[in-house]
Amino acid sequence: MNKEITSREIDYSQWYNDLIIKGGMADYSAVRGCMIIKPYGFALWENMQGVLDKKFKETGHQNAYFPLFVPKSLFEAEETNAEGFAKECAVVTHYRLKSDPDKKGKLIVDPEAKLEEELVVRPTSEAIIWNTYKGWIQSYRDLPILINQWANVVRWEMRTRLFLRTAEFLWQEGHTAHATEQEAIDEAKKMLHVYADFVENYMALPVIRGIKSPNERFAGAVETFCIEALMQDGKALQAGTSHFLGQNFAKAFDVKFSDNNNKLDYVWATSWGVSTRLIGALVMAHGDDDGLVMPPKIAPIQVVIVPIFKGEDQLATISQKVNTEIIPALTALGIRVKFDDDATARPGWKFAEYEKKGVPVRMALGARDLENNVIEVARRDTKEKQSYPLENIANTVADLLEEIQKNLFGRSLKYREEHITNADTWDEFVNLLDTKAGFIAAHWDGTPETEEKIKELSKATIRCIPLDNKLEEGNCILTGKPSKQRVLFARAY
Amino acid sequence: MNKEITSREIDYSQWYNDLIIKGGMADYSAVRGCMIIKPYGFALWENMQGVLDKKFKETGHQNAYFPLFVPKSLFEAEETNAEGFAKECAVVTHYRLKSDPDKKGKLIVDPEAKLEEELVVRPTSEAIIWNTYKGWIQSYRDLPILINQWANVVRWEMRTRLFLRTAEFLWQEGHTAHATEQEAIDEAKKMLHVYADFVENYMALPVIRGIKSPNERFAGAVETFCIEALMQDGKALQAGTSHFLGQNFAKAFDVKFSDNNNKLDYVWATSWGVSTRLIGALVMAHGDDDGLVMPPKIAPIQVVIVPIFKGEDQLATISQKVNTEIIPALTALGIRVKFDDDATARPGWKFAEYEKKGVPVRMALGARDLENNVIEVARRDTKEKQSYPLENIANTVADLLEEIQKNLFGRSLKYREEHITNADTWDEFVNLLDTKAGFIAAHWDGTPETEEKIKELSKATIRCIPLDNKLEEGNCILTGKPSKQRVLFARAY
Repeated sequence: MNKEITSREIDYSQWYNDLIIKGGMADYSAVRGCMIIKPYGFALWENMQGVLDKKFKETGHQNAYFPLFVPKSLFEAEETNAEGFAKECAVVTHYRLKSDPDKKGKLIVDPEAKLEEELVVRPTSEAIIWNTYKGWIQSYRDLPILINQWANVVRWEMRTRLFLRTAEFLWQEGHTAHATEQEAIDEAKKMLHVYADFVENYMALPVIRGIKSPNERFAGAVETFCIEALMQDGKALQAGTSHFLGQNFAKAFDVKFSDNNNKLDYVWATSWGVSTRLIGALVMAHGDDDGLVMPPKIAPIQVVIVPIFKGEDQLATISQKVNTEIIPALTALGIRVKFDDDATARPGWKFAEYEKKGVPVRMALGARDLENNVIEVARRDTKEKQSYPLENIANTVADLLEEIQKNLFGRSLKYREEHITNADTWDEFVNLLDTKAGFIAAHWDGTPETEEKIKELSKATIRCIPLDNKLEEGNCILTGKPSKQRVLFARAY
Repeated sequence: MNKEITSREIDYSQWYNDLIIKGGMADYSAVRGCMIIKPYGFALWENMQGVLDKKFKETGHQNAYFPLFVPKSLFEAEETNAEGFAKECAVVTHYRLKSDPDKKGKLIVDPEAKLEEELVVRPTSEAIIWNTYKGWIQSYRDLPILINQWANVVRWEMRTRLFLRTAEFLWQEGHTAHATEQEAIDEAKKMLHVYADFVENYMALPVIRGIKSPNERFAGAVETFCIEALMQDGKALQAGTSHFLGQNFAKAFDVKFSDNNNKLDYVWATSWGVSTRLIGALVMAHGDDDGLVMPPKIAPIQVVIVPIFKGEDQLATISQKVNTEIIPALTALGIRVKFDDDATARPGWKFAEYEKKGVPVRMALGARDLENNVIEVARRDTKEKQSYPLENIANTVADLLEEIQKNLFGRSLKYREEHITNADTWDEFVNLLDTKAGFIAAHWDGTPETEEKIKELSKATIRCIPLDNKLEEGNCILTGKPSKQRVLFARAY
């Protein structure tokens, strides 16, 4: 165990923060609730962006950029959406500072530079985008519009957590416009599957695809689809959402189109997003008491090579081998490799450092190894070490990276499968939440009131109604009223 | 000439706006001074980002992300910098809206949600970054720090222009920290050359590399290096800047390091940035009265193929050839190609459309061409059309794209060379500005007062003192005082 890192058993929450801070992913900032994404954390985000952006483009979407600010009158146009975000939005009221007449070198807000209309820093961009789409859409020929934006957004959350919940965060938001209801629903579902595929196959994190209950729906949506993941402490985490917005925004912004019969109708909409929150999910799902554990497919560094040497001559010989043979062979296979030949740090320190950073594969090469034409390879996920022939080492490592990726997904899936439990009574439900946690499949009478009451009493929320849910007669765990299907409850991040 | 586009001769400013709006690059927004970058414009920006980001990484920089907001107390810490930006910054004062008690469905700023300390929306990030570096730097071993950030920034400009000057814009800002003054100066110069190389070799726009006079220096810099380009109306445009910040920010934020002799000293800094403003430069430098002209290397679409057909059968035959042979051959060479097989639009309309969008090469393929195994190829820059054998067409096009890239640079360079003129008297100077415009090389007595006076009288500013300037004795055009070198004046965007 790494002494810098609090054990999960002792303090899960501190363990999480330690992984992020000590692993070099992020840092606290001087701005309340905002964080700094450090190069190592940002490199991970860039890899995630790269995969997602490609998927978006392959499914016909284009990137664009809309303003950071939303004038208050636009912000309030879609009332449900406005109500949902009004309580937590940063508001720009002035456009100038001036010298403080009382304190030399200090500045104050210039009262003469008050904006006529306040600007909301976007918490999400439906309002500004639908106000724009109004000018772009006249006929069915202008549809569909399939646009995505990579951007920063601000939600003034009272309690913040690194990556999981920050006042400012980075995300992408897709905003699409369609001629028919069905096409919009299909789009929302398609993008949910794109997210699920990304999170499962790149982040090695199994997710449940489902529909949100009305209480948990995005403000302004008709239906919210979501992917839900399970963390190591048995709490759930919403990893991405995709919304069918119906004609709500089209009506709020008066966006109509004429169909091929020249009939006017409001446009149908979707929006969908994932954010840097996913990084929090990755940390919590795969990390251990030694630090981060990066899924190979998106790891900033996939392989680190540490030379074991005495004196400069040995280092030179090892470096020669590494730089002229091993690294070229690895990079030829597209493997991201780092050679840490810093002579001022000891190998043991480096081992701990790259463990903390969750580098999937560590290779150590000493003079003796070179003589024997072997290299020591350690995998981060299982901690297993093994000596491999240097011949063909690149392919050995490529296979190992794939195996690690599979293993991470497999063990997360096993944990998740073991943590979906049925509860048939209220006592069973509460007891499970307090002991085993995870997802609890239970009957619910379908009313928002009962959902709210369950949340109040147990701090558990309905995470989703799985897309592939089976119908089953039963009785609501709280009210005993009849129910036609179980839904998934959990305490959540 | 395209009828939708105002001619340069008639109204240069309207011509510029027409190119951007009609070319589908951007749109006006509901937010004062902010614009929407549409997919076609954003695709160009993505290509520019791709090249620059690679260059930054090749020169050892890593990306990171710092908060959008700067608390007022940090913002004002470096006084020159604060003074420079205070007059044009958006200020967040509240973190909540609430229902308007007087108007149903409307929102007002909640006076109870006033921030204790106002937050400035970053106009540039030196303050927030140097406040962070303070925690990252103790010893020379922590140096250099070579970080870049892709971000949005806000400067509340009173007069805005699409791309050239918008309240919010996208940019990258590099922020580096060094142990020695020389290393920081070298870094600032190195990044200036990276910018110059990018603008010249990818944007096909020649630039003059120089040093800013004190009046034009970045607020908080010791020295500002810049690249200056010339537009078709003879006005100059600052295309990128790189600043040597000395120890100004280190002192303001108390960032010291111990050197290898355990001596404490303040850290040396640089910052450097280019922005979406470059897109404005590209539009103005290469466009003509038919629309945009995209340099091939960064064009969102490099080649468009338009089928010329009567009836579905002909279209099917042509499409078969295009989709199974021509497009695969082009994409195999990394060429970005679009096949516009929309049967509802006429070829002439498409020709005008892609001319407006500045697609470097347009290919038209008809049934007769297919029989003769030829294809018509038109280049956007010279409007020349020629029939080429279909055999080996991909290589023909690849060569043509290179030739277009060279030609665009060549003609811009020729124009620029013809528009650097010496002026030895005030009358000559003013006369040149009003007639030929361009850069005017003139003697200046070296004082900020004279520089200011010249600006007042002529609206021309010192664009830069070229890095390779020759010393030459002379007399200031305004004051007649002795001068040791000419500097470059121009009216500028």
